Amino acid sequence: MAKGITKRADDYAQWYIDVVRKAEMADHSPVKGCMVIKPTGYGIWEKIQARLDRVFKETGHVNAYFPMLIPESFMKKEAEHVEGFAPECAVVTHGGGKKLEEPLVIRPTSETIIWDSYRTWINSYRDLPILINQWANVVRWEMRTRLFLRTTEFLWQEGHTAHATYDEAEEETLKMIKVYRDFAEDYLAMPVAVGRKTDAEKFAGALHTYCIEGLMQDGKALQAGTSHHLGETFARAFDVKFQDKDKEVKYVHASSWGVSTRLIGGMIMTHSDDNGLVIPPKLAPLPVVIVPIYRNDEQRELVVGKAESMTEGWDPLFFKIDNRDHYKPGRKFNEWELKGIPVRIEIGPRDVESGTVVVARRDTGEKVTLPMEGLLEKIEALLEDIQANLFKIAKERTEKNTHTVDSYDEYKKRIGDGGFFQVFLDHDNPKVEERLQSDTRSTIRCIPFDVEEEEGECMISGKPCHYRVIAAQSY
Amino acid sequence: MAKGITKRADDYAQWYIDVVRKAEMADHSPVKGCMVIKPTGYGIWEKIQARLDRVFKETGHVNAYFPMLIPESFMKKEAEHVEGFAPECAVVTHGGGKKLEEPLVIRPTSETIIWDSYRTWINSYRDLPILINQWANVVRWEMRTRLFLRTTEFLWQEGHTAHATYDEAEEETLKMIKVYRDFAEDYLAMPVAVGRKTDAEKFAGALHTYCIEGLMQDGKALQAGTSHHLGETFARAFDVKFQDKDKEVKYVHASSWGVSTRLIGGMIMTHSDDNGLVIPPKLAPLPVVIVPIYRNDEQRELVVGKAESMTEGWDPLFFKIDNRDHYKPGRKFNEWELKGIPVRIEIGPRDVESGTVVVARRDTGEKVTLPMEGLLEKIEALLEDIQANLFKIAKERTEKNTHTVDSYDEYKKRIGDGGFFQVFLDHDNPKVEERLQSDTRSTIRCIPFDVEEEEGECMISGKPCHYRVIAAQSY
Repeated sequence: MAKGITKRADDYAQWYIDVVRKAEMADHSPVKGCMVIKPTGYGIWEKIQARLDRVFKETGHVNAYFPMLIPESFMKKEAEHVEGFAPECAVVTHGGGKKLEEPLVIRPTSETIIWDSYRTWINSYRDLPILINQWANVVRWEMRTRLFLRTTEFLWQEGHTAHATYDEAEEETLKMIKVYRDFAEDYLAMPVAVGRKTDAEKFAGALHTYCIEGLMQDGKALQAGTSHHLGETFARAFDVKFQDKDKEVKYVHASSWGVSTRLIGGMIMTHSDDNGLVIPPKLAPLPVVIVPIYRNDEQRELVVGKAESMTEGWDPLFFKIDNRDHYKPGRKFNEWELKGIPVRIEIGPRDVESGTVVVARRDTGEKVTLPMEGLLEKIEALLEDIQANLFKIAKERTEKNTHTVDSYDEYKKRIGDGGFFQVFLDHDNPKVEERLQSDTRSTIRCIPFDVEEEEGECMISGKPCHYRVIAAQSY
Repeated sequence: MAKGITKRADDYAQWYIDVVRKAEMADHSPVKGCMVIKPTGYGIWEKIQARLDRVFKETGHVNAYFPMLIPESFMKKEAEHVEGFAPECAVVTHGGGKKLEEPLVIRPTSETIIWDSYRTWINSYRDLPILINQWANVVRWEMRTRLFLRTTEFLWQEGHTAHATYDEAEEETLKMIKVYRDFAEDYLAMPVAVGRKTDAEKFAGALHTYCIEGLMQDGKALQAGTSHHLGETFARAFDVKFQDKDKEVKYVHASSWGVSTRLIGGMIMTHSDDNGLVIPPKLAPLPVVIVPIYRNDEQRELVVGKAESMTEGWDPLFFKIDNRDHYKPGRKFNEWELKGIPVRIEIGPRDVESGTVVVARRDTGEKVTLPMEGLLEKIEALLEDIQANLFKIAKERTEKNTHTVDSYDEYKKRIGDGGFFQVFLDHDNPKVEERLQSDTRSTIRCIPFDVEEEEGECMISGKPCHYRVIAAQSY
């Protein structure tokens, strides 16, 4: 057990908690199911926000902010929605020392309060589309919580768009799941399956839900982002109509889509190892740490001075010189490894003499000696290589752990070992999904977009199927 | 009444609401006292966040996130704090369909939940200082609300720092009120008085509170930011101690500081006019709008084409070409004026011929003709000039409305006309402040930092005073 971290092979769940806590990403809070996101963890959320916010804006969206408190009656206006969310709601009954006339719910998601506003914003086709995103906290009362993966309060973004037609809403819903896929693969370095949820697993109130699903190192799937085509559901519940070009009055079509701080959990479980956190360089708040090695004041002055002159002109947010005197270099190496810093540079008196530094990469642990001259360009290239390598490793692992299985007996035998299972299942049949769940604690994760036509029989009901779906145990 | 906006001279309060709503900054929500911040308003909040977040990081702070739900018992651990905030709390009594064992309060401010965490983070002097900021929503149950100025839920940032000594905490408290002053003056273009609050007006739990106070166009003061020296108050309440270099175990010293979406209300009331919103260029999400003027398709192609080629290479977030065909130019001018866009560029067929454009500035309404060549540099200079001019006008108005008064009779006569009043008041005497409040609905806004020594007598109690304080009616 290195640095107080349980090995993955010994106890994966404990390993995860150890990494999150020892790397100072987050901590449990005195409020059941809520977490404190510490600066190291929040720094990664800021990188996630910065990139996604940019892409949202490039795709025409603007940010706004809607109230966190929702009248209980709003939640009840849409039957499926309230059925899905009421059991998870936190309820405010008192305010300003008095009992409220109507209880208020802390948003578990904002469709209802937002569509109540959209009613007054939308009159004509000229007011459409509305392309709004919100960065916010939400509360869903959870029984079993895990830091980042499932917490009572979490941070997320929720897009809520309004369109004149079904087709435009569908285009938006698809566009945003692709934004999430690209982000997951290019930034989190997490390969994902992309597809549609079954009716049993879709969002409460949606016509259909698209999702991205990653495969964690323990072989469990993680739903990492969803995009919902809401059709006219909320427009009808909140009476949001518009006069179209043809002068007819019609209901507005909607989409909503979101990702949350859960992505950080997915990042950890995709890349981290028995030595601690591994952060993909594109999401690293601090990509590079420099550890000067010295035994006395004279050497300190020499190597710290060289580290400073060598990094003149570098972006101060790109690196940090760890010149804490009360810790030895070995202890510093361990700390930065544990915290997942992508690149560590070591510089000692002999390095100063030879004009070189030792550079260690977090992903493979490899060390190379590099000349100080032109170092920044080499480090930048190395960071790109680490980013690509992390994705490659995760992609290979996902492929290795994607199995094609035809018999339910084999499925039941193997599902406990983890992995994505490409199987024939009659996904329109709730009984099949219930049986799958109760027999194997697994679910249909998605009906993939890129699935090929193939004839087969549902491994539970025997009904003819024309393509395979992906089933797995999941978080 | 232009564009549905009441004139300031007729009804200032109604003018404010009209500007906020007609410029699409914010709207009332169905939840009493809560507001919907619309994209135009939220865009300004994003500019505020971007600048302040940068300065916080440059001054060594990092962001984190603490739970929004606080056990009721935490609030009660500090006597002054609970007395100050309990009457404003929203209380969650039910979660997940069950009554909670202990009610949870939605944070009105986060000192208690944060200092409960700091207890486990801080052991040694080596763990100090902790310099953390949080961007969050808070809820304070308010009876009388006004969009942006006072709402039940609002967005803010709250810094919470921990230090080894009183002096370090004091240095931090002072540093951050100066950060706020610089931001108010350089970005909001809002001159502020900076000083200390009286004991009666300080934060519930602080040793003392520093503040910035702006003077609005109606002569009322607006508290725009506060920085609190909390001493050992919360360390004692939550038992947060550390072993110092001298091996002694001591309580930790604290500061907290915050600004909120109220700043947007201050910006509006400092600069806007009877034609609508005026946004200081440094906070304008969209600094420039280009209105092409055409009467037929041929002209449209010519002027829109020219507008596009003329702006090639400009940052797409810097400007927008308003080529909506269903609105006439005059209607567009009105709309962008109402929305406070700092610079409007008009381009018609004759302008294309002469290689010039007409440029109108929002602050003065002045129009000039400028050559297309080198236009970007000229616009950038113009924006700087507008920013400086807005501050100059506000500064002159504040100075003109700052009065030195010695007799209470005169004060009572003039206070209703508005302004900052430099007066002698015995600010250590609660009875004096109560009397001032009940006689004149005014308060001591601050004891200014830059006050000169001057001998006088408290205009209420007659007690000798050695400097003047600033009193005013306020929001």
